[in-house]
Amino acid sequence: MTEQTARAKVDEAQTAARTLAMCSEDERNAGLRSIADALEERTDEILEANEKDVAAGEKLLEAGEYSQALVDRLKLSESKLEDIAEMVRSVAEQTDPLEKTLVSRRLDEDLELYKTAVPIGVVGTVFESRPDALVQIAALSLKSGNAVILKGGSEASHSNRVLYEIIQEATDEFPAGWAQLIEAREDVDALLEMDDAIDLLMPRGSSAFVEYIQDNTSIPVLGHTEGICHVYVDDDADLEMAADIAFDAKVQYPAVCNAVETLLVHESVADEFLPAIAERYEDAGVELRGSEAVREIIDAGPATEDDWASEYGDLVLSITLVDSLDGAIDHIAEYGSKHTESIVTEDDDRAVRFMRSLDSASVFHNASTRFSDGYRFGLGAEVGISTGKIHARGPVGLEGLTTYKYHLEGDGHIVATYAGEDAKPYLHEEFDGDWLDN
Amino acid sequence: MTEQTARAKVDEAQTAARTLAMCSEDERNAGLRSIADALEERTDEILEANEKDVAAGEKLLEAGEYSQALVDRLKLSESKLEDIAEMVRSVAEQTDPLEKTLVSRRLDEDLELYKTAVPIGVVGTVFESRPDALVQIAALSLKSGNAVILKGGSEASHSNRVLYEIIQEATDEFPAGWAQLIEAREDVDALLEMDDAIDLLMPRGSSAFVEYIQDNTSIPVLGHTEGICHVYVDDDADLEMAADIAFDAKVQYPAVCNAVETLLVHESVADEFLPAIAERYEDAGVELRGSEAVREIIDAGPATEDDWASEYGDLVLSITLVDSLDGAIDHIAEYGSKHTESIVTEDDDRAVRFMRSLDSASVFHNASTRFSDGYRFGLGAEVGISTGKIHARGPVGLEGLTTYKYHLEGDGHIVATYAGEDAKPYLHEEFDGDWLDN
Repeated sequence: MTEQTARAKVDEAQTAARTLAMCSEDERNAGLRSIADALEERTDEILEANEKDVAAGEKLLEAGEYSQALVDRLKLSESKLEDIAEMVRSVAEQTDPLEKTLVSRRLDEDLELYKTAVPIGVVGTVFESRPDALVQIAALSLKSGNAVILKGGSEASHSNRVLYEIIQEATDEFPAGWAQLIEAREDVDALLEMDDAIDLLMPRGSSAFVEYIQDNTSIPVLGHTEGICHVYVDDDADLEMAADIAFDAKVQYPAVCNAVETLLVHESVADEFLPAIAERYEDAGVELRGSEAVREIIDAGPATEDDWASEYGDLVLSITLVDSLDGAIDHIAEYGSKHTESIVTEDDDRAVRFMRSLDSASVFHNASTRFSDGYRFGLGAEVGISTGKIHARGPVGLEGLTTYKYHLEGDGHIVATYAGEDAKPYLHEEFDGDWLDN
Repeated sequence: MTEQTARAKVDEAQTAARTLAMCSEDERNAGLRSIADALEERTDEILEANEKDVAAGEKLLEAGEYSQALVDRLKLSESKLEDIAEMVRSVAEQTDPLEKTLVSRRLDEDLELYKTAVPIGVVGTVFESRPDALVQIAALSLKSGNAVILKGGSEASHSNRVLYEIIQEATDEFPAGWAQLIEAREDVDALLEMDDAIDLLMPRGSSAFVEYIQDNTSIPVLGHTEGICHVYVDDDADLEMAADIAFDAKVQYPAVCNAVETLLVHESVADEFLPAIAERYEDAGVELRGSEAVREIIDAGPATEDDWASEYGDLVLSITLVDSLDGAIDHIAEYGSKHTESIVTEDDDRAVRFMRSLDSASVFHNASTRFSDGYRFGLGAEVGISTGKIHARGPVGLEGLTTYKYHLEGDGHIVATYAGEDAKPYLHEEFDGDWLDN
């Protein structure tokens, strides 16, 4: 790899994006399959590089600077690489997010407007230490016709470099530089200034990191900061169902953003509901923190104001009572992060009220918050989760990496014909037809 | 009107947005009709306030600080108010952008996912001096269920205050404070900090102003900075058609963002094409600025590097020759603002290449750039034009003021069922059905 500045890399990506946008679905899928094959063929090379990262990680583990979990996430193996190659092939199998005509409208005779799905252009990504993240992001970008800037964690630098080289070489039929690897932390700050060249930033990482990105760039940012999700157990809930949902939402995988952080219980069912669920939580090692009223019923630590606004990401749960559905809605509106909320109730009207009032990306009735996920939602590969409300919201699939473009096919039409005293009226008729077939 | 701080107004709008999101289409349309009626009933009051603004504007005109055009735009009349009331009624007539189910997907038996269109929440708007802008923006916001912060130009402050009071009183059945008037310039800067409460900013005004907003907030911004549009006359163009399009694109209304600024002509047709079109432009008072090669053929001032990157917004046009289609594409990619470009050619393949290569919101074949407009595109009322690529692009209709939300209806479903060794597979079947009918 020759050394280029971050700016030179982004400029090259921008040029590549223009050509990439014209590649057909077959070409993009062939590129993906070629990446998958190369990953399998060059397994030894990847594992060798990965060992260097793991060895460095283990030294830091001994020094107490790294956790075992972090080292485990770094580590690749032959079977993991096979899974990664399979993941790339499955991205190739997905429905093409491009080459779709979204609207065809006849403005007048021989004046036809087509709104079609197109790539966004240049997407900047900053992601965590798992080396499979680089491959996944590159694959999703290629599938959606976007040039991509990849900035991985320095812990995985050897692995990332080899994976990147393999991807580059496997896609040498594509415009050079459609994928760019950025390695230095300083280069991230350089990227944030390039609002003329980067169309979208997708940071993954801690809330603080995502907020830092949002606050320091005028490039649109797609990402999620916090996931403070709620389960509300209504007074008309099936309490057995409520217990199953509340348990699953916390315990099934507590480290992720769609796990529940605060359980809201209607006061009239608290005496019956809380003791049983508290026992299940206790058996699973969940630390409970309750409001005063909760602590009169079950054994729990005291919850402070901070608890209602905390994403624990761990086996910790805060619990409070509410006196009504509106009490639950108000609590969530005040402390939630607009990610995912679930109501457990047999009363459909109340469920509708809960789901319509709350301004969260995902609102559930009688289901675990853990369903809030691109794969479970049937979106195919997940690009990320967005807690913003603009462009893409909630779990984001490949569609989130596309935008649209208007094509107008005329026959010498001018606006003067449709203006002034003898203005010709527009037809504005929708019709069936694709732009490229016209 | 009691005096509230900008923060208090935005907080009130945020609370109102939650209730407003639950209003039905009928309720929102009734609100719009009530605004239209009130505008007609209280014409005298509005005109009285408007006279104060006009008088102040005329003083500034005498002092040489205002243009006549600005004063003209400020001025309301009985018939203008009737038009404004009719505009509000026409917004009520438009297809509801909400209460639409975009996707219905069965994840498993009795586990149904609905993606539905919902309002964005709180929209902040800053607009120019025309008092009808306030009414139009408020109407579009109410139609799309959004609470709105309105900051108009100080030149129109008396008119804006009365129009705002009328809108408030006419919609007193809606949550108080769904529309908020902000009057002080300092309050704009306060708004830019409120990324916790404002979901979208829509500034209208000069490029410099829109850029200032983009650079000083982490709230998503929908707007357009520059409109540097191009017409390319290919060597295979019908030259008569090309002349009509190039003329219309510049002359029909030069002050707007979709007017052409640079004309690109294939060198092999320049000798034939340029003299005739130059004469038409001259008759219409258009100042021409050409490259050296152009000035060898027609009489024109010299175009500098700055000209290629300028939005004149006036009867000025820059012209240059290119040696190929790719030369035209490269010029537009370098200097354009991704707004609207048009190719005039009889060769469909070249048209496709032009339209696919260019990363502009609107790409036209054999039609004037002036068609790039929400009304002409058949989008109904136009919220604005976006030169960004995220969320909404090109002319933006009511849909641009909506986002979506996922509703999941379960029957006690938990994720543990679908994980691990005996994981149940998902169905992921699309079906016909609306969330509220389920």
